Amino acid sequence: MPNFSIGVDLGGTNLRIAAVDEHGNFLERVSLPTHVSLGPNYVIKAMCESIRQLGERHRATGELAGIGVGIPGIIDPETGLLREAENLPGWAGVPVQAEIERQLGTRVVLENDANAAALGEKWLGAARDFDDIAMLTLGTGVGGGLILGGKIFRGMSGMAGEFGHMTIDWEGIPCSCGSRGCLEQYGSASAIIRMARDMARREGASETFKTACSSPGFNAKSVYDLAVQGDERAKEIFHSVGRSLGIAIADLVNAMNLPIYVIGGGVSGAWDAFAPSLFEELRHRSAVYAATEPSPDVERSSKAAKGKTLIARALLCGEGGLYGAARLPVVSGS
Amino acid sequence: MPNFSIGVDLGGTNLRIAAVDEHGNFLERVSLPTHVSLGPNYVIKAMCESIRQLGERHRATGELAGIGVGIPGIIDPETGLLREAENLPGWAGVPVQAEIERQLGTRVVLENDANAAALGEKWLGAARDFDDIAMLTLGTGVGGGLILGGKIFRGMSGMAGEFGHMTIDWEGIPCSCGSRGCLEQYGSASAIIRMARDMARREGASETFKTACSSPGFNAKSVYDLAVQGDERAKEIFHSVGRSLGIAIADLVNAMNLPIYVIGGGVSGAWDAFAPSLFEELRHRSAVYAATEPSPDVERSSKAAKGKTLIARALLCGEGGLYGAARLPVVSGS
Repeated sequence: MPNFSIGVDLGGTNLRIAAVDEHGNFLERVSLPTHVSLGPNYVIKAMCESIRQLGERHRATGELAGIGVGIPGIIDPETGLLREAENLPGWAGVPVQAEIERQLGTRVVLENDANAAALGEKWLGAARDFDDIAMLTLGTGVGGGLILGGKIFRGMSGMAGEFGHMTIDWEGIPCSCGSRGCLEQYGSASAIIRMARDMARREGASETFKTACSSPGFNAKSVYDLAVQGDERAKEIFHSVGRSLGIAIADLVNAMNLPIYVIGGGVSGAWDAFAPSLFEELRHRSAVYAATEPSPDVERSSKAAKGKTLIARALLCGEGGLYGAARLPVVSGS
Repeated sequence: MPNFSIGVDLGGTNLRIAAVDEHGNFLERVSLPTHVSLGPNYVIKAMCESIRQLGERHRATGELAGIGVGIPGIIDPETGLLREAENLPGWAGVPVQAEIERQLGTRVVLENDANAAALGEKWLGAARDFDDIAMLTLGTGVGGGLILGGKIFRGMSGMAGEFGHMTIDWEGIPCSCGSRGCLEQYGSASAIIRMARDMARREGASETFKTACSSPGFNAKSVYDLAVQGDERAKEIFHSVGRSLGIAIADLVNAMNLPIYVIGGGVSGAWDAFAPSLFEELRHRSAVYAATEPSPDVERSSKAAKGKTLIARALLCGEGGLYGAARLPVVSGS
């Protein structure tokens, strides 16, 4: 009878909870709106209630190994307090971990969601068999997680992995962080939308492109669809996405020489549109990468990949954070 | 009676060997030309002879704890073979470690010289009491060393710490590595000389500046002297050095959130000329740094520095690599 654990992915919009067995099989998943406006007390109580019910329902499966929670914010590595959480207004300073532990009477591991996603990819995804991993999550913004020596590397104050704010173009687009030319301004879904709207205003954009950009449901996926259809402007945008990722990953390769860099998040769905430019830029920007580039037929985690630098697409899609959260109590206990 | 170890700093020009006791006191130092042109066999033999004599002379001091050698090249983390060594032509593939061990009959630890310098600063210099350190060495080129969890972090293939090839300006000056706009093109002694010569050719440079640039002994120190004397062009060059360092260190802070970044190498002697621009750029480029910037009166390694990001000038000047090499057998043995 395998043990199981419960993972929680607490987002600004949705709260997802899953029971996962020790082999990584989903036993059950619950998804509910986060109701951020009702405040942390309400959300934590609802979360605990769902966790409790889920735990009860799978009691027959095995022992509950623990509970892990991924949260979009900065967690103080010493106190476990949530320090900043942009998408969870009113949560900064809330003792989330202690409160869940109090309500459930069991140990809880709290972790930044991008770190949890990296852990998920290490456990069951693109970075299986690797102990040193950098993961970039390309969503509305660009997040990052770092695993070194098999453990999440949080940095001095829980802020390691802010890859989205590495400088791509030192004179580039101003960023909300106060800098300019950050990766987030070129490699995120928001950046893709901004670049498309900018292009639609300029001469030479096709009517299809302009129409798409002004239609109600317009998003980064729409730009990808245009690129797939061969629209030159849309292709140019993904070229820019790839080039900026290439520059950032080259910096990481040069600085850390890790064996694998995983790219996840919604934008990673456009892999075929941006990857060629990414690899071209990376080869050019990093002699370390050029010296360790795998031949095209190298499979991930195969022996042929030994000593090679892999740039891999995340395999767990939107589930990496949930899998990773469920893995937290297991790796933190060891 | 304290133990002692022998450190070797094998450079392209000079070979320096020192006996250092376990408290970091220099017992004796030997410096000789490397005679690179005579080939690795000659150099290794001469080195071993000097090491042997030094060991003999200090036999009465205590037990020889081991021998560490810092070398300007890439060392394969698995085999210990020297893979690349730009300034030591003909040395690639030479089993340096095995050969010294064979000639001396004792264990030898071989390490990249920038990593050895970082270890030296950790042991006795600016990064005492820290376990996570990035060190940038600004010399003819820009080297780097990374210490994580108290241990040298070599990366998958011994190439971690290539901070000199992080991109500062993606459309910038071509670099010998094949990329362009690398930190090395703005923050090294060679870059300072190049920038000065470029400026001397342009309108507006003072006669003093032009004369200095075309005088025989002209080097990066000459540009610094001009800056100290108030020359606007020279000051502009160090502003550019500081800004490029600020961009690179911001990337490292954002990616790794380490407690300390040490700047060493010859160019670090111009600290007062470039540091103001460095800090200005860093604050602007990294919200992580801005959130963890120490107040100006925080002393290194004081309790007030806890949770703060320190940018520190190396304390061991040109000796960091030698101290670090002597420390290698101690930390590698543990």
